[in-house]
Amino acid sequence: MSELRQDPITKEWVILATERAKRPEELRIERQARPAERYVASCPFCPGNENRTPDSVLELPREGEETWQVRVVPNKFPALSREGALARRSTGSWHRVSGVGIHEVIVETPDHSLTPALLPAGDVARILEAYRARFDAVSADPRIAQVTLFKNHGAGSGTSLEHPHSQLIATPIISSHLRAREYEALRHYDDFGACLLCQVLEQEIHEKTRLVLESEHFTTLEPFASRVSFHTHIYPRRHMASFGEVTKHELEDLAGHLKTVLAKLYWGLGNPDFNYTIHSAPAENAGVRYYHWYLSIIPRLTQMAGFELGSGMSINTVLPEAAAEFLRHVTLGRSENLARRTPVHAANGFRKG
Amino acid sequence: MSELRQDPITKEWVILATERAKRPEELRIERQARPAERYVASCPFCPGNENRTPDSVLELPREGEETWQVRVVPNKFPALSREGALARRSTGSWHRVSGVGIHEVIVETPDHSLTPALLPAGDVARILEAYRARFDAVSADPRIAQVTLFKNHGAGSGTSLEHPHSQLIATPIISSHLRAREYEALRHYDDFGACLLCQVLEQEIHEKTRLVLESEHFTTLEPFASRVSFHTHIYPRRHMASFGEVTKHELEDLAGHLKTVLAKLYWGLGNPDFNYTIHSAPAENAGVRYYHWYLSIIPRLTQMAGFELGSGMSINTVLPEAAAEFLRHVTLGRSENLARRTPVHAANGFRKG
Repeated sequence: MSELRQDPITKEWVILATERAKRPEELRIERQARPAERYVASCPFCPGNENRTPDSVLELPREGEETWQVRVVPNKFPALSREGALARRSTGSWHRVSGVGIHEVIVETPDHSLTPALLPAGDVARILEAYRARFDAVSADPRIAQVTLFKNHGAGSGTSLEHPHSQLIATPIISSHLRAREYEALRHYDDFGACLLCQVLEQEIHEKTRLVLESEHFTTLEPFASRVSFHTHIYPRRHMASFGEVTKHELEDLAGHLKTVLAKLYWGLGNPDFNYTIHSAPAENAGVRYYHWYLSIIPRLTQMAGFELGSGMSINTVLPEAAAEFLRHVTLGRSENLARRTPVHAANGFRKG
Repeated sequence: MSELRQDPITKEWVILATERAKRPEELRIERQARPAERYVASCPFCPGNENRTPDSVLELPREGEETWQVRVVPNKFPALSREGALARRSTGSWHRVSGVGIHEVIVETPDHSLTPALLPAGDVARILEAYRARFDAVSADPRIAQVTLFKNHGAGSGTSLEHPHSQLIATPIISSHLRAREYEALRHYDDFGACLLCQVLEQEIHEKTRLVLESEHFTTLEPFASRVSFHTHIYPRRHMASFGEVTKHELEDLAGHLKTVLAKLYWGLGNPDFNYTIHSAPAENAGVRYYHWYLSIIPRLTQMAGFELGSGMSINTVLPEAAAEFLRHVTLGRSENLARRTPVHAANGFRKG
């Protein structure tokens, strides 16, 4: 018989449909091709084309070179306007806020053909440093209430641009989605005198069956009530409410987890489409005892359908225990790291723009 | 500048990105072909193939004929088991419930090539009658807490079967998604002494700009904080908490709305993929003053991406006012009703199974 499990973070239920459960290797996934070209002349994120984006707000250089390795630029077609005053207007049941906010693109590597799964962990650490730097900078804007960092990988994940990139959207309001998580965490703290996620992590480490990777500072696992097949969480082991509290040393460790689990998904499941996102307390709640930030990866192996949209619940046909076992057994060789030694800038004859 | 609007039902925010807003007619939608064949030998829902599904739990006959027009069968690969006891188990942060529940398929018409947009309103009323009958029957099961009725139309909506059908999933728990809506509605009732949706409807009727259709018993509109382009709600004008309270007479009127708005989407936007779902109070809350059921249509014109998954908010590039105006102007001729006079059973030489 199937089993319903409750997500301890959202309190939402997931149907683990073991009656029609699939072994992970039975998932019919067609391997997505990755882009063939390392440089695409029409791509606004390829090196040499920097004049096709707004001026960068951050560039992290490639070690020992003059070229950038990670570049953060304002989105050319932003969902929210960087300039303007925060204004609210309410009439009857309607509440409106002016669309001020910040929408940025983090270009993850100069190489059009790569993806974090194929980068060395050190390069992934630079991407995370850029996240952290922009999270801090943007949170300091008094108009900003919430910062969402996310990546869309592959056409099925909602992205239209192929060049590897993530995004940051900072909004002048807190979403009810985040508020609901905060309320649940707060209630748990008040009931048990302990952080919900610290307790979840303790229980996961004790039970072992859903663990994928452990290191000094982070734990990667398939959550107990995985909403989709291969839903993956990376938790900091140290209690931290906000992503803004993470240290540079910890980011290096997180990069190892992120690179490794993305590589396991890439090689084990054939480069599936996915989204990942960082769930953090608002920056103003840094240091609170009840909230705990984490990174969530959602592979897009199935479509969200009417049941999910109508009820909020979801149906998952791969047990997280089976997914974790599968991922633990995906081995990564050194040859699978496809970041070439020749930087794409030089390969294409471009210099720093 | 863009505008953020708060959905009064969920309290979630939507970014109406008017900076990059599209006029509805600019949406690049490729017209989806509808199935060419009225009967497909391998289709388990086509008439004559009734032995390929579990025995029906309801059949509504075609007027003046011996054949069925709407047929409800247990899902052959159910997410939940119809038989079995409800059992709960909790350990630490984990809450589990045995996977008992009901998963049924509502076959909407014998004709493989049709869809409710192309059926006469009278035929759509039979589908809604089947929903209502099964909602009642299933809600009477003491193990059942919540009933979700939904339709997935087109490959992008998460369906794999082409033959027009909807589904019912009845779960032994209430989703936190529904609970959150109930809490908000309850709080509104306690603050204002009135049903939230009754007030929303009054405000919408007063403002007119988002209305699509009005009749004696129902109002169809594009909600103030439309989460996606052409997000459409159909509200009963009479206060009713549960779908189980609707009368047969009202269902005939609802069928006219549903058929008409689906036809407007079909002809106006080129048969887009969509989901629809009925948001109802749990049957045990029938009659409460604070909740109000409605039907929600979510066209799948864009992909849900990392921002939506990470923050709960969404970005919509078509203003609901523009979508409503567009839909009001889509005209439907009598020739667009493609339900043929010859029933498919007879056309294919099949008799009642």
